[in-house]
Amino acid sequence: SAFSGAPAMANDSVLKLTQDPNQWVLQTGDYANTRHSKLKQINADNVGKLQASWTFSTGVLRGHEGSPLVVGDTMYVHTPFPNIVYALDLNNEGRILWKYEPKQDPNVIPVMCCDTVNRGLAYADGKVFLHQADTKVVALDAKSGKVLWSVVNGDPKKGETNTATVMPVGDKVLVGISGGEFGVRCHMTAYDMNSGKQVWRAYSIGPDSDILFDPEKTTALGKPVGKDSSLKTWQGDQWKIGGGCTWGWYSYDPETKTVYYGSGNPSTWNPAQRPGDNKWSMTIFARDADTGMAKWAYQMTPHDQWDYDGVNEMILVDQEVDGKKRPLLVHFDRNGFGYTLDRKTGELLVAEKYDPAVNWATKVDMDKSSPTYGRPLVVSKYSTEAGGEDTNTTGICPAALGSKDQQPASFSPETGLFYVPTNHVCMDYEPFHVSYTPGQPYVGATLSMFPAPNSHGGMGNFIAWDARKGKIVWSNPEQFSVWSGALSTDGGIVFYGTLEGYLKAVDAKTGKELYKFKTPSGIIGNVMTYTHKGKQYVGVLSGVGGWAGIGLAAGLQDPNAGLGAVGGYAALSSYTALGGQLTVFALPN
Amino acid sequence: SAFSGAPAMANDSVLKLTQDPNQWVLQTGDYANTRHSKLKQINADNVGKLQASWTFSTGVLRGHEGSPLVVGDTMYVHTPFPNIVYALDLNNEGRILWKYEPKQDPNVIPVMCCDTVNRGLAYADGKVFLHQADTKVVALDAKSGKVLWSVVNGDPKKGETNTATVMPVGDKVLVGISGGEFGVRCHMTAYDMNSGKQVWRAYSIGPDSDILFDPEKTTALGKPVGKDSSLKTWQGDQWKIGGGCTWGWYSYDPETKTVYYGSGNPSTWNPAQRPGDNKWSMTIFARDADTGMAKWAYQMTPHDQWDYDGVNEMILVDQEVDGKKRPLLVHFDRNGFGYTLDRKTGELLVAEKYDPAVNWATKVDMDKSSPTYGRPLVVSKYSTEAGGEDTNTTGICPAALGSKDQQPASFSPETGLFYVPTNHVCMDYEPFHVSYTPGQPYVGATLSMFPAPNSHGGMGNFIAWDARKGKIVWSNPEQFSVWSGALSTDGGIVFYGTLEGYLKAVDAKTGKELYKFKTPSGIIGNVMTYTHKGKQYVGVLSGVGGWAGIGLAAGLQDPNAGLGAVGGYAALSSYTALGGQLTVFALPN
Ligand SMILES: O=C(O)c1cc(C(=O)O)c2c(n1)C(=O)C(=O)c1cc(C(=O)O)[nH]c1-2
Ligand SMILES: O=C(O)c1cc(C(=O)O)c2c(n1)C(=O)C(=O)c1cc(C(=O)O)[nH]c1-2
Repeated sequence: SAFSGAPAMANDSVLKLTQDPNQWVLQTGDYANTRHSKLKQINADNVGKLQASWTFSTGVLRGHEGSPLVVGDTMYVHTPFPNIVYALDLNNEGRILWKYEPKQDPNVIPVMCCDTVNRGLAYADGKVFLHQADTKVVALDAKSGKVLWSVVNGDPKKGETNTATVMPVGDKVLVGISGGEFGVRCHMTAYDMNSGKQVWRAYSIGPDSDILFDPEKTTALGKPVGKDSSLKTWQGDQWKIGGGCTWGWYSYDPETKTVYYGSGNPSTWNPAQRPGDNKWSMTIFARDADTGMAKWAYQMTPHDQWDYDGVNEMILVDQEVDGKKRPLLVHFDRNGFGYTLDRKTGELLVAEKYDPAVNWATKVDMDKSSPTYGRPLVVSKYSTEAGGEDTNTTGICPAALGSKDQQPASFSPETGLFYVPTNHVCMDYEPFHVSYTPGQPYVGATLSMFPAPNSHGGMGNFIAWDARKGKIVWSNPEQFSVWSGALSTDGGIVFYGTLEGYLKAVDAKTGKELYKFKTPSGIIGNVMTYTHKGKQYVGVLSGVGGWAGIGLAAGLQDPNAGLGAVGGYAALSSYTALGGQLTVFALPN
Repeated sequence: SAFSGAPAMANDSVLKLTQDPNQWVLQTGDYANTRHSKLKQINADNVGKLQASWTFSTGVLRGHEGSPLVVGDTMYVHTPFPNIVYALDLNNEGRILWKYEPKQDPNVIPVMCCDTVNRGLAYADGKVFLHQADTKVVALDAKSGKVLWSVVNGDPKKGETNTATVMPVGDKVLVGISGGEFGVRCHMTAYDMNSGKQVWRAYSIGPDSDILFDPEKTTALGKPVGKDSSLKTWQGDQWKIGGGCTWGWYSYDPETKTVYYGSGNPSTWNPAQRPGDNKWSMTIFARDADTGMAKWAYQMTPHDQWDYDGVNEMILVDQEVDGKKRPLLVHFDRNGFGYTLDRKTGELLVAEKYDPAVNWATKVDMDKSSPTYGRPLVVSKYSTEAGGEDTNTTGICPAALGSKDQQPASFSPETGLFYVPTNHVCMDYEPFHVSYTPGQPYVGATLSMFPAPNSHGGMGNFIAWDARKGKIVWSNPEQFSVWSGALSTDGGIVFYGTLEGYLKAVDAKTGKELYKFKTPSGIIGNVMTYTHKGKQYVGVLSGVGGWAGIGLAAGLQDPNAGLGAVGGYAALSSYTALGGQLTVFALPN
C-alpha cells in the first residue's frame, strides 16, 4: 500500500487490514483509493483461463454499484434500495450467514436522482457500516448482523438521500449526502464509530462556521481563502439551496490525518439563477479528519454550467513530477480534466484533458501570475449561460455525466499509471427557469446525450493515464461508457466491467484484452479481489443502472428522461436486462 | 429419439427438429418427454472441467421454471410473470435480438397458487408460442417477436391462470390451464397453430361431451368407461367446480397421433365435501391429437385426500417388460408411485413406490381380478377424510407436493434408466369446510411440511429408476427437494439443479457427483443442452420459487403459509436469494 510506513493511529485497524491483500476491507481498496492489489496469482499469463467460480443473486434488481467486502472468511454484500446486507460464508460458496434488510419508505426512490444505487458497505473493528438510501447510517455487528447503533443523516422529504459508501477513519465514520438535483445544501459528517454521535459536520457551502474554513489557515491555490469565501460567491440566499453534494468517494492520508473528497454541482442546473462562482461547489477539499477543518480547497469548475460534479475519487500517490518526488492527489474530474495536485499544499501541478473530445474549455490556466490561474478557460459557444434561459446549447463535450462519473479509476505502482473508466459522450443543454420547492426536483435544464461525434462511435474508453505528464498512454474504445470501477494488480493486469455486462481483463502495459466474460447484467459495480485458502478470487457485482443505465433501471422511454441519459444509452437494451448478481472468478484448480 | 421411424405428419417440422440434438426446440427435449440428448462432447470424463461460458439476467425475480429453447442460432428465453420473452443471438453471447413484454394485469398474481412461474415457450414453423399467466396464448414471429395472433384461454377473475408450456402438435397447439385451488373445472384445448382458432377442448371432469369420452371406445384399464363415467363419481353439482387441472407437461406419440397428459387434484382439498371417486381428476389421459377424443384414461388417486395432482410428465419409451418389448408410458406420480403402463392400451404393468418413505397407501392393487384392481390401497390412519373435518392427520408421506412435483425426469436409452428429481417430504393435513366464491381460494385444508422422518434429514433425493421392475437403482440424498428438471446425455451423465442453486452433473450409471457449480439463485428450471458452432453447451435458469420456494419468492413467513410449504423450506433462505438468470456452461476452449 502507498502508506506502508505510516505512523500508528488511535485506531489503525482498518489501515492494517488494507495492507493485507488477501482481504478487501474498504470499497476503495485502500485509503489512498488506488484500487490496486498486490495479488498476482492471477496474472497476464494465465488470466485468459479465468473462470466463474461461484455466483450469488442479491435478490434485488436495478443498479448495483460498489463491491463486496471480504474480511477473513466472510464476504459482505450490499444491494441497491432496499439496501439489503448479506454476510456470506466463503468456506461454503456463499452460504448466507446473516441477512439484514432495513425497512425503508419507498418514497425515497423518486428523490434519488440517478437510480437506487448504493456504493457499498464499510468495515471496521467488528462492525459493518451501511448508509441507507434514506440517509440512515447503521452500524451492524459483523458476526451477527445485529444493529449496534443507527443515526439519521438527512431528510428524504427535502430531497436528502444517500448513495455513497461510508469511510471509517480512526474512531469515526465519515458520511456524505446526495441531493444536488433537489436544492440540498450538502455536507460531510463524522460520527463516532462506537456510539453514532455526531462529531463534526462540514457543509460545502455557507458561512465559514458551517463549512469549517479558517479564513487565515485554509488555503486555495496556496493563498488563504479569506473571510466568507463561500457566501461572497452567491447571490442572496441562493446558497441555502446551493447543492455541492458529497456523494462520491472519500480518501484519507493517515500520515497527515487528512481527508480528501469533492463536492458536486451547484443547484440549480440553470446557471442564470445563481450568478457567481458558487463556492465551494465543484471543489476538492482537504480536511483534518479529527475536526473537519479545511486545510485547502480547490474549485475546479467555478460557476458550473454543465453539471460537472467534482465528486470523483481523489487518488493519493507519491510520484515524481518534474524530477521531484511529491505527495500527489490525482483526480479525474467530470469536467474532463485530469488533475494532479500536491496533496499537502493543494498546489496544482497538472491539469490536462483525459478525453480528447473535451471542448467546453480550452485548458486550465496554469499561469500562476494570471488572474484566471487555476480556472478553466471556457469556450463561449459551449457556455450554457451565454445564450440565456431556454436556449439550447449543442455539442458540448463531455455530457453532464462527465468524461468520467463516479466509476473509480485504479493506480498501479508497478506501471506508475492510472487506469480510468471513461465516458465519451457529449450533450445538448437547455437551461430553463425553475423555482424551488422542498423535495421537488430543482434541475432547470433539459438535456440530451449522444456519443462523442467524429470519433469511434462508442460512448466510452478505458484508458491508461500518466498523471505526471497529463498524457493518455493507451485508450481502448468501448461501445458504452465504462461505468464500472477498475482494479489493477501486481499480476500486470487491469480489470473492469462494461455496461453490456462483460468483465474484462487487459494488460496493464498495453491495454491488450486478455479475458472477457459475459456476466448476467450490465456492470456498474467495481472489481475487487481477495484470496481464500490460498487461492485468488476476483469479484464483481452485475446489475445495470446508475445514471447511464437509468433508462433500463427505471423503465424510462422518453429520450430526454433520466436527466437526459435515456436517449443516449437506449441501445443498451439490446445487450442486457436488469439484474443483481455477484460473480466470483478464479483460475481452474 | 424414441420415434426416429415415425411416419410423416401433416406438419412434422417440430418432430424433425427434435431429432437434431444440436437444437432444443421443445421444453421436454422431445415429444416423448425423455429430456435426453444424444450429445456427448461433454461426458463423464471431462464434465469435471465444465465452466460457466456466459450468463444472462432475465430482469425478473421469482421462480424460473422451464428452460430456454434453441432453434438455429437463436435462443428463446422466457420469464415468470410478467412473462417477458427474449430472443438471444448465440453468435453474440446472448445479445438481445428482440424482446416481447406482454401487458398483464398483476391481479393475476394472487390467483396463482404456487408462485408466478411459467414453464416456457414452444416453437414451431417460425413461430414462438407463449402461454401467459393470464391465460392469453400468443403466437410470435420467431424472427421479429411480432404478435401473429393471440387468444384468451380462461378468466383469471375465476381463478383460471396458466403456468404450463404449450405443446405444438401437427397444425395445432395444445394448452392446459391452472386453478385447482380455485375450483376451476379444467381442460386441455387445441388451437389452430396458424390462426389461433379453437379446434377442440376436453374438460377433465363433466358430461361425456365435455370430456370427449366415447362410452364404448374410451377405456379404463382395458374396459370401456361407459356412460357418464365422470358425472357418476361426483355428488350434485360439485363437478362444476371440480378442478382436475392440466398444468403439467404434455407428451405426444406421432406414430399413433396420441397426446398424453395428467389431470390434477379435485377441488376442494377437503375430501368430505366431494364424496365419490371424483373422476377424471388425478388421471392419465390418452387422447387423439386431431379430435381430442379420449382413447383411454387411468385414475391414479381416486377421491384424492392429499392434493396428489396427477399432472407430472408421461415419458414415452419402448422397453422390454417381462421379456416383451412394449410401448411404455412411465409416470412418476405425486402420490409416490412410479407407474409403467402400455401407452397403446393403458394396461397397468408396474406401480411401485419410488420413495421408500411413501406411507399413505401400502401398494397399488395389481390383481386384475380384484374389485380394487389398479387402485391404491389407502392406509386408513393417513386418510385425511377418515378423521373428518378439522382433524389433523399427521405424518403423511409424501406431502401434498408429492414425492415428485412438476420437475421433470429424464430417460437415458443408453442405461435404460429414468433419472428422477424427487421430494422427500411429509406432512400434517387438516381439512376444513370451505365455501366456493369465484376467484377466491377454494382450498379447505391447513398443511405443514417437514423432511421425511427417520431418513437422511434432507428433503429430497435424486434417483435412478428402473421402470421395467419398479426399482430404485441408486439414490443421492439432497438437503432440499430437487425441484429442477433432469437432463441425461449420451455422454453418460445426468444434470440437475438444486434449490440451493447448484447445477450438478452425476455419472448416469452410479450417481457419482462429477461436477457442481453454484449458480446465482436456487434452480427450479430444467437443464437443457445444444451445440453452437460445433461446441456443446448446457443451459439452466436459476431463480428460486415454485411451490417449494414460495416462502422466498413471495416473502412469506408463517410456516403454514404457501399452502403449507413455507415452514418446511424455511432453511432455504440460508442458501440463496431471489434471482432470475440463465447460466450457459461449456468445456474450456
Ligand atoms: O448531486 C447529487 O446529489 C448527485 C447524486 C448522485 C447520486 O447520489 O448517485 C449522482 C449525481 N448527483 C450526479 O450528478 C451523477 O452524475 C450521478 C451518477 C450517479 C450514478 O450512480 O451513476 N449518481 C449520481
Ligand atoms: O391445481 C392447480 O391448478 C395447480 C397449479 C399449479 C401451477 O399452475 O403451477 C400447481 C399446482 N396445482 C400444484 O398442486 C403444485 O404442486 C404445484 C407446484 C407448482 C410449481 O410450479 O412449483 N405449481 C403447482
